[in-house]
Amino acid sequence: MHNPQLNKNGELAHLLSIEGLPQGILTQILDTAASFMEVSARDVKKVPLLRGKSVFNLFFENSTRTRTTFEIAAKRLSADVINLDINKSSTAKGETLLDTIDNLVAMHANLFVVRHASSGAPFLIAEHLQRIGRDDVHVVNAGDGRHAHPTQGLLDMYTIRHYKKDFTQLRVAIVGDILHSRVARSDIHALTTLGVPEVRAIGPETLLPKHLDKLGVHVFHDMNEGLKDCDVVIMLRLQNERMSGALLPSAGEYFRHYGLTPQKLALAKPDAIVMHPGPMNRGVEIHSAVADGEQAVILPQVTFGIAVRMAVMSIVAGN
Amino acid sequence: MHNPQLNKNGELAHLLSIEGLPQGILTQILDTAASFMEVSARDVKKVPLLRGKSVFNLFFENSTRTRTTFEIAAKRLSADVINLDINKSSTAKGETLLDTIDNLVAMHANLFVVRHASSGAPFLIAEHLQRIGRDDVHVVNAGDGRHAHPTQGLLDMYTIRHYKKDFTQLRVAIVGDILHSRVARSDIHALTTLGVPEVRAIGPETLLPKHLDKLGVHVFHDMNEGLKDCDVVIMLRLQNERMSGALLPSAGEYFRHYGLTPQKLALAKPDAIVMHPGPMNRGVEIHSAVADGEQAVILPQVTFGIAVRMAVMSIVAGN
Amino acid sequence: MHNPQLNKNGELAHLLSIEGLPQGILTQILDTAASFMEVSARDVKKVPLLRGKSVFNLFFENSTRTRTTFEIAAKRLSADVINLDINKSSTAKGETLLDTIDNLVAMHANLFVVRHASSGAPFLIAEHLQRIGRDDVHVVNAGDGRHAHPTQGLLDMYTIRHYKKDFTQLRVAIVGDILHSRVARSDIHALTTLGVPEVRAIGPETLLPKHLDKLGVHVFHDMNEGLKDCDVVIMLRLQNERMSGALLPSAGEYFRHYGLTPQKLALAKPDAIVMHPGPMNRGVEIHSAVADGEQAVILPQVTFGIAVRMAVMSIVAGN
Repeated sequence: MHNPQLNKNGELAHLLSIEGLPQGILTQILDTAASFMEVSARDVKKVPLLRGKSVFNLFFENSTRTRTTFEIAAKRLSADVINLDINKSSTAKGETLLDTIDNLVAMHANLFVVRHASSGAPFLIAEHLQRIGRDDVHVVNAGDGRHAHPTQGLLDMYTIRHYKKDFTQLRVAIVGDILHSRVARSDIHALTTLGVPEVRAIGPETLLPKHLDKLGVHVFHDMNEGLKDCDVVIMLRLQNERMSGALLPSAGEYFRHYGLTPQKLALAKPDAIVMHPGPMNRGVEIHSAVADGEQAVILPQVTFGIAVRMAVMSIVAGN
Repeated sequence: MHNPQLNKNGELAHLLSIEGLPQGILTQILDTAASFMEVSARDVKKVPLLRGKSVFNLFFENSTRTRTTFEIAAKRLSADVINLDINKSSTAKGETLLDTIDNLVAMHANLFVVRHASSGAPFLIAEHLQRIGRDDVHVVNAGDGRHAHPTQGLLDMYTIRHYKKDFTQLRVAIVGDILHSRVARSDIHALTTLGVPEVRAIGPETLLPKHLDKLGVHVFHDMNEGLKDCDVVIMLRLQNERMSGALLPSAGEYFRHYGLTPQKLALAKPDAIVMHPGPMNRGVEIHSAVADGEQAVILPQVTFGIAVRMAVMSIVAGN
Repeated sequence: MHNPQLNKNGELAHLLSIEGLPQGILTQILDTAASFMEVSARDVKKVPLLRGKSVFNLFFENSTRTRTTFEIAAKRLSADVINLDINKSSTAKGETLLDTIDNLVAMHANLFVVRHASSGAPFLIAEHLQRIGRDDVHVVNAGDGRHAHPTQGLLDMYTIRHYKKDFTQLRVAIVGDILHSRVARSDIHALTTLGVPEVRAIGPETLLPKHLDKLGVHVFHDMNEGLKDCDVVIMLRLQNERMSGALLPSAGEYFRHYGLTPQKLALAKPDAIVMHPGPMNRGVEIHSAVADGEQAVILPQVTFGIAVRMAVMSIVAGN
């Protein structure tokens, strides 16, 4: 089956999902990101790679944080960035998603960064672009429904590689609401592709998807067991809406079982790193002593995220 | 009477309305737009004509689509663009429109792109600028009430000239809610000025203004009759609010009478083009087979729209 | 006690409040602003001082006008500007203010422009930056609660110096709702620091803070007395919410007592200037004949405001 993310030379044309990407492409993105790390640290944080290109941030779902990271990354590549608050736009007037896309393509858009509440929306757009023969226009998925958040997955991989060097010796635990998390899904595919031998999922039964074992993931309901001897602990954000729902007794109860405290973290390897996609709920999924502690690499994740997004945008626009 | 759009040398100082503009100026704008067409197709879509100038998008009425086209056009001219969401701004605090303008002029604004629900608001601003002696500050009307939408009118003319070359042999039909349409009003003035010999208005009596004949427009209530032998068919968007009102029986009924289907389109000339200002209501005023068909030039309109807006902004700011 | 606004060399690292700043720094800002005045009047309104730097407008409280002036100033310094509408952002998801700041610092922010409803929020941010050792990141207070609005205070000083040259011979009156005004507070500290011998506060008892005399301010409840022989009259905006509250009988009554009319202004010196931070309530705190009269310097204040904000941003980012 043809992979809609790759062009006919097998190069990355769109970043829609980590699932199905070969290891070589993941490594290419991480290596390119490494080369951009010093740009953001410069006095003049600019490279001219996308100068004069039009990048559209199409956020059908609100996310200031993610939009901002893409906006910064695009501006550091010297692109012209147009933010479209789609709630306010023509979609509200009954225009279809693909009519909106056709219009923006007619304005000579070069790259769409798409966040959408519906799983698969960025795929639809990429397929449509292919159907109308516009292989010069590219799509980057900035999170679609519960499906995927590939740039978050990639920045997580960048972070792990930065601190642990070699993927093939690691034990990585992902903790929390994996059922509703596109981050978890992207991380699991990336970790597997990059050769991590043991991926663990830790959480209450109500927040874990069924059939995780088919992805090669080891399931733990007891956090103490699950954290044992891990090299990397990826904490997930507990969405506020879950806490008041039937899926969980209370935030306090959740914290008691699955909140990462210094005591629980002590069960992992002494040099284990702690990651979190942000924004954090301190006292819900993570104790402040861990969030601000020496093993946390949560802020470096943000820094790496800019470089990874610059890498993805420059790679797809260059192919 | 002095035309407030022209400076004392008879050059375009503001674009407020197509009504009253001489043919020479319309042609100048279309010719300039033609010269900008290749900029958007370039790898680096930039010319430095407005470098360091401050363009303010003053949208008192919401329109993501129109604002975006002006923002792109201004950025491709290298201007600094400031988007002002006026609902949030000082006007809400009781400041008058002209006090807001005075303040922005004091910030060294060069060009205002104005969308306003009240007919005549851009005129008021242009007159005020003249009164305070600021002939270095310019106004472009991006749609005022039911009055005018001159850049849409101009991009429609660009589209017609592109496909039909000569205005003086054409039969052009405008179909739909002409009563509430500033696009129709701008199109009628432009078509007349450019020498189109026959302009037709097609729609139910409740959606056509009285006295269209005084503008030289031929009125048709039967769409089959009206489309006969036309070279150009301009479909208008049916506003959702009309459909639930007393003016129309229902969307289905409207489509049956005035929706453009392949069958009805077959009554026009075989090489007739179909235009629409967007966003389209598929199945209301236009059938998808027409919208996506070979005679539709709806997406080229969008592309031409960027070039036309670049032309208008560079001409007024250069005069 | 250490002044959090100054670095160890005594240079301006953050602009948080005029209170506590030495006269030399105020004068440095005014002199630098003077050198930027011609940039905005140029054809290409750009200097490359902040090229490639990332300026974040963090507006936790809505203010299109102030945000716009900072955005323009930053763009004229060639910075990349990111506007964050914080109501929409992670703060709404329960993230703490300092976690948000940490994230933006991790994205290599250079400068935060902060507007916040809580007095002291910019101080908290500056202290936090110092605590985490990031003396390369700077904070400019764009208005915090009732506390301070230092760039407004500075542009007011620029205006007074421009028209009156010497601060040490002046009688300056501030009229209106001083109790709730961060502008008044910043003006009083600036006027005192720059050596103005007589500062007057005019308003009803309900709108004046207690203990103004401790700041060396002369209090007047009768406007006719208070305006007598003044060189400078600074009118304050009467917030709409005050007018319906218990603090004031009515807008009409307020205007009768404290609205600046030509008659009342005649009591000041013949060459007195009239200032207002905007947006004006014509007919409430100021008569249109005064607002548009020869003694008003309200629009020049706006022009000077851009230069002053360019000066502040370039000075803190350069230190």
